[in-house]
Amino acid sequence: MSRNISDRPCPEIFLELAGKLADSAVPIALKYFRGDIEIDLKSDLSPVTAADREVEAAMRAIINAAFPDHGIFGEEFENEPGNSEYLWVLDPIDGTQSFVTGKPLFGTLIALLQGGSPILGIIDMPALGERWIGASGRQTTFNAKPVWARSCAGLGQAWLYATSPHMFEESDEPSFERLRRNVRRTVYGAECYAYGLVANGTVDLVCEGTMKPYDYMALVAVVQGAGGII
Amino acid sequence: MSRNISDRPCPEIFLELAGKLADSAVPIALKYFRGDIEIDLKSDLSPVTAADREVEAAMRAIINAAFPDHGIFGEEFENEPGNSEYLWVLDPIDGTQSFVTGKPLFGTLIALLQGGSPILGIIDMPALGERWIGASGRQTTFNAKPVWARSCAGLGQAWLYATSPHMFEESDEPSFERLRRNVRRTVYGAECYAYGLVANGTVDLVCEGTMKPYDYMALVAVVQGAGGII
Repeated sequence: MSRNISDRPCPEIFLELAGKLADSAVPIALKYFRGDIEIDLKSDLSPVTAADREVEAAMRAIINAAFPDHGIFGEEFENEPGNSEYLWVLDPIDGTQSFVTGKPLFGTLIALLQGGSPILGIIDMPALGERWIGASGRQTTFNAKPVWARSCAGLGQAWLYATSPHMFEESDEPSFERLRRNVRRTVYGAECYAYGLVANGTVDLVCEGTMKPYDYMALVAVVQGAGGII
Repeated sequence: MSRNISDRPCPEIFLELAGKLADSAVPIALKYFRGDIEIDLKSDLSPVTAADREVEAAMRAIINAAFPDHGIFGEEFENEPGNSEYLWVLDPIDGTQSFVTGKPLFGTLIALLQGGSPILGIIDMPALGERWIGASGRQTTFNAKPVWARSCAGLGQAWLYATSPHMFEESDEPSFERLRRNVRRTVYGAECYAYGLVANGTVDLVCEGTMKPYDYMALVAVVQGAGGII
């Protein structure tokens, strides 16, 4: 999979479907948010909830109904390779730690890849009613208004976001520490929301580690479509 | 100042005024949030904005008009000692780092002390439209509904929140590190919101350092009024 947005403009029909996917996640996520949630721990200790599974199942059903030949790669279920050049990459609830502790900074991440390159990405925040849409050939929008990443005069001026300083592989920890000591300020704990803030031009940098494709594919189109670099 | 809520019930008239103070902060905070903000750096490097000063000035004016003999202790202006047993403690925008980077987890903190003991605390989140009210003699409410802190079977089961692992005095850092390694999970970056989540019973522990009275006085009534310990 490429980490750069495609040169080919994203067809409108896929943008419409992606919007439907994000819409479908909202009521399910909010039904479970701040309710009594059963928390399982996966092998890597990341918490999973019934909400994750239910949201992803709903999104898969919508994709399968509209484009049965498209592939689907999601966090919670088996890979569906499909039979076309299109692949949807889904993270039903990014920021599960926020979700299970009642903090509204969790998001649904939706990406579409064409021939391995992202052409579309959505960061949707169900509890905040906020949505970033990035797509090849268009300016990224935040709540339907175009946004631009900002320029930054130098590392010493940069506001850095990271989910946690403890999320890195051991060999990456000293690098993060060096970065942290050279920026203007480091703020923790925003998960996918931090990338939206880069697109909005209110944060300069995000540094994270050990991310899977469903954790970052949607972010590529949002950040790059706002003029940012990922 | 005491760190325990008073035994004396908080008079209704003060609850009404505190609500007005929180209301007055919302439009000012939202006017500046995600706008072009001039960021000064105070001697301790905490960012201050015109929004902080404008919100606190508005709240001071309301208190002075209603109870000219009450004292006021706020983050941004000189101490007004007053001429009574009542002291208002104000943090116009807690979580300024969130505020200046476009993250909605900043709050207005309002506390009232009687004879040095907190009788009232409000955590208001202007960008989220959420409010915790704690007061002596009443159950803490979140958006007008009563909330309860939860019990926790042991440290190994606890969800811990902290703004940052780097906020501690040098001598406290090893203690925080030991705590962090013994809880179930540590989540960063929620500032005052984390204490509200303790009151809501979705977070077990918050551990922070180098806090001033205006950073925590409002939290006392909110957390203790929900049955929590601070």
